[in-house]
Amino acid sequence: MGRAVQPYELIKTKRDGGRLDPADIRAFIQAYTAGTVADYQMAAMCMAVFFKGMDSRELGAWARAMLESGEVLDLTDTPAVKVDKHSTGGVGDKVSLSLAPLAAACGVPVPMISGRGLGHTGGTLDKLESIPGFDVNLSTEEYRRLVREVGCCLIGQTAQVAPADKKLYALRDVTATVDCIPLIASSIMSKKLAEGIDALVLDVKVGSGAFMKRDEDARTLARTMIGLGAEMGRKVVALLTDMDQPLGRKVGNALEVMEAVDMLRGEAPEDYTEITYALTAEMLVLGKKAASVDEARQKLRRAVEDGSALRKLREIIQSQGGDPRSVDDYSLLPQARSTVDVVAPRSGFVTGIDTEGVGLAAVALGAGRQRVDSKIDPAVGFTLLKKTGEAVKEGEPVVRVHYNDEAPVNGVKARLLAAYRFGDAAPAPRPLVRERVE
Amino acid sequence: MGRAVQPYELIKTKRDGGRLDPADIRAFIQAYTAGTVADYQMAAMCMAVFFKGMDSRELGAWARAMLESGEVLDLTDTPAVKVDKHSTGGVGDKVSLSLAPLAAACGVPVPMISGRGLGHTGGTLDKLESIPGFDVNLSTEEYRRLVREVGCCLIGQTAQVAPADKKLYALRDVTATVDCIPLIASSIMSKKLAEGIDALVLDVKVGSGAFMKRDEDARTLARTMIGLGAEMGRKVVALLTDMDQPLGRKVGNALEVMEAVDMLRGEAPEDYTEITYALTAEMLVLGKKAASVDEARQKLRRAVEDGSALRKLREIIQSQGGDPRSVDDYSLLPQARSTVDVVAPRSGFVTGIDTEGVGLAAVALGAGRQRVDSKIDPAVGFTLLKKTGEAVKEGEPVVRVHYNDEAPVNGVKARLLAAYRFGDAAPAPRPLVRERVE
Repeated sequence: MGRAVQPYELIKTKRDGGRLDPADIRAFIQAYTAGTVADYQMAAMCMAVFFKGMDSRELGAWARAMLESGEVLDLTDTPAVKVDKHSTGGVGDKVSLSLAPLAAACGVPVPMISGRGLGHTGGTLDKLESIPGFDVNLSTEEYRRLVREVGCCLIGQTAQVAPADKKLYALRDVTATVDCIPLIASSIMSKKLAEGIDALVLDVKVGSGAFMKRDEDARTLARTMIGLGAEMGRKVVALLTDMDQPLGRKVGNALEVMEAVDMLRGEAPEDYTEITYALTAEMLVLGKKAASVDEARQKLRRAVEDGSALRKLREIIQSQGGDPRSVDDYSLLPQARSTVDVVAPRSGFVTGIDTEGVGLAAVALGAGRQRVDSKIDPAVGFTLLKKTGEAVKEGEPVVRVHYNDEAPVNGVKARLLAAYRFGDAAPAPRPLVRERVE
Repeated sequence: MGRAVQPYELIKTKRDGGRLDPADIRAFIQAYTAGTVADYQMAAMCMAVFFKGMDSRELGAWARAMLESGEVLDLTDTPAVKVDKHSTGGVGDKVSLSLAPLAAACGVPVPMISGRGLGHTGGTLDKLESIPGFDVNLSTEEYRRLVREVGCCLIGQTAQVAPADKKLYALRDVTATVDCIPLIASSIMSKKLAEGIDALVLDVKVGSGAFMKRDEDARTLARTMIGLGAEMGRKVVALLTDMDQPLGRKVGNALEVMEAVDMLRGEAPEDYTEITYALTAEMLVLGKKAASVDEARQKLRRAVEDGSALRKLREIIQSQGGDPRSVDDYSLLPQARSTVDVVAPRSGFVTGIDTEGVGLAAVALGAGRQRVDSKIDPAVGFTLLKKTGEAVKEGEPVVRVHYNDEAPVNGVKARLLAAYRFGDAAPAPRPLVRERVE
C-alpha cells in the first residue's frame, strides 16, 4: 500500500503505448479492489490494454497484484511437485475428470480449483456435482489435507481467492474486454497460482468450439501464459489441442462423468483418451515422476491397466463425500428420462461440426448456463453417435438427445442439425495435439 | 426510443474497427443518459473510439444524439443568420469579449453559450462575471429576447442543454478519453447547435498553450468539426491560430476585460486585435453582412473607429445586469491590491513562452480553477510586459503579477520565470493565423 494512485495518468500512459511501472500496477489493482479506482476507470484501462498490450514485466505485476488481492493457499506440507492443468474451455471437455486421478495415481499431487460452465463451454464443478454427494465446497484446511493424503482435491473458487480477478472478470464480461490475451492470461494465472501449485499444464483449445478460433491466437496465449509463469517462478507447458469438434462422444454433466470413468478403464473414444494422455504425461514430467513424455505415457497406460487410476478416482470421490459406487454403477448417476435421435438428412460423411453450436444446444437443453445464476440439469446432454469424418446413411441417428424437459427438445434438435455439416467425402483429419509450446 | 441496446455488441463492434449504425448510436446515448448503459460501458466505448475513430455518419449520429438529449433553443424569431464562435481554449484568450459586440454591431446576431475556465485555460463566463452585476444565468426566454433585441447574449450552459454531453464530459475527464478528436468535435457541436445557431466560426488554437500542440492535430479537429457541421446542416469555418504564447498582454479575468475594451477602442496589442478581426470577419461573411473577408474587415475597423462596437458592448453589459460604466472607468472592475514584477535573469531576447506554464501559474495565483468547484479571484493575473521576440535587459521587468493573496506569489513568480525562455537572438515570428480550413 502507500503508493498514491493516479488512475488518469496510468490509463493515459497505457493508452499512449507506454509501459506501466509494476508498483503503479500494484497500487492501481489494490485501489480497484478497494473501490477507490472506479469500474469506469478499470474499463477504460482494460480497453487500452486490449489495444496496447502489456509486456512481460507489466503482466507479471498485474497477475501478481490480482493473486495477492486474496488468499494464496500454502501447500508446502505436501513436499512433492504439485501440478495442475488448466483448459481454456471447450465442449465435451471432461479431461480434468480423468487426468486428475491418473496424475495422482502416478504420484503427482493435483490441487485443482475449477469453475462452472458458462456460455457454450462446460465446467468441471458442474460435472463433479453430478456425482451423488460430491462436495466441491471444502475448507482450505480440508483442501490441504486431501492434497497431502489423497494426492488430489477438486474444489471451486472460494471468495478468498483472487477477489480482484472476480471483480475484474465481471467487468470485462460487460465491456467487451474478455477476449484480450494479457487479461485472460493474468486472470488464469492469478487464480491458478492461488491454488498453491508448482507447475501448470495448459490446454489451449483451438477451433470452432474454442475461445481461440485460430492457431496463432492460441499460440500467443500459450506463450503469454508461459512467460507469465516464468515471471512468477512457475513452469508452464502448453499444448494446443483440437476443439473443432466436441471432445469424446458425450456432452452433458453426468454423461461426461461416465465417459471419464470409461477412459480410466481404457474404454473411451480415442480422441478424448489421447488428449488426456498427452496432458497428463506433461504433468508427470513436470512433477518429476517421469524423465520423458514417453516414459510418462507408459506409466499412465499401466495405471489404467492395473486399475490404480480408477481406484484413485473412487478414493477422490469418497474423500469429498461422493458415492464411489457411481464409478461401477452408472445407474447411481443422474439419468435422463427420455432420449430422442437427430438423424442424418442425407447419406455421405460428417464433414464438420459447429462445436459452439453444439455447446449452445446443450445450454438450451439445460446442461449448461445462460447466466451465472441459471440452474442446470445434470442428467441431460448428448451422445454424439457420429463425429467428423464418419460415414452416415440418410435417416441414420447422428446425435442422441438425453432429456427430461420436453419443451426445448425440438429447438435443440434443430440446433444440432444446423451444427452438423454433411458432404460427399470425409475431410482430412486434424491433428489432436496441434502444437506443444514450452 | 424503442430500439433495444446491446452495449456489449456495440462496444465490441467499435473495438474491432466496425461501423456503428446511427440508430444504435442514438439508442446507446439515450440509454447512457437514462442510466441503463453504465459509465463503465461508456468508458470502454470511448476508449474504443479513441483507437478506432468514427466516420462522418457515426459522428453525426453521435453528436445529434447528444444534442437531442436536451433542449435545443429556438431562435427563429431572430430572422438573421446567427453565428457563434468557439475556441478550443488558450491562455489570455479574451477574443469572445471583443468579437461578440463587434459582430453584433455589424448586424450579425451572436447567441453564445460559454464555459468556465478549467485547468490552464480561462473561460469566458469567469471573465464576464468580473464585470460588476453581469448575469450569465438568464432564462431561455430572456436569452431569446436579447439575441433578438440586442443582437447578442452571453450565457452559461444550462442543465437543459445537452445533458448527455455533460455526463460524458465528466466521465472522459477521469478515464483519459478527453483528447480524442471525434469525442471533442461531437461534444462541441452538440453544445453549440443547442444554442440555435446557423453557422459557426471555429478558433482552433495550436501551440504550447493549446490543447492541440501540432498543426496536423488541429487541422484534423477542424476538418472533423466542419464535416460534422455539414452533416448537421450548419456551415463551419475554422482558423488555426497561434497559441504558442499567451494572446495579448493580459491574463486574468478583470484584466482581460480591460484589454478587450482596449481592443474595441483600437488600443489593444496587435496579436489579439488581429485574431479578433480575423475571426469576426469570418462571422460577418457567414452572417451575410459582408461579401468577402476584406469587406468584413473594413466594416469591423469602422465599427471600432466610430465607437459602435464599444456602444454595443455597453448595451450588452447593461442588458445582462452589468454596470456599463465599467467600460469607461476600469476602477469599477475588480482591482488587485498589490503588484510585483518578475525580472529578466539575463539580457537578450525572449525566445519562447511555455504558455501552459503561464496558464497554470494563473491558476496557482487564483485566477483559474484547479477543480470544478474552486473559487476564483477575478482581480488577479498577469501583465506580460515582454513577449516572444522582444529584447530584454537583465533585471528588467518581464511579467507584472497582480495579486491579493501573498501566499502563492513566490511560487507563481518561479513558475513564470521557468515558463520564459531567454536567448541571444529573437526567433522567427510565427504567423498568427496559421491556416484557414473550410
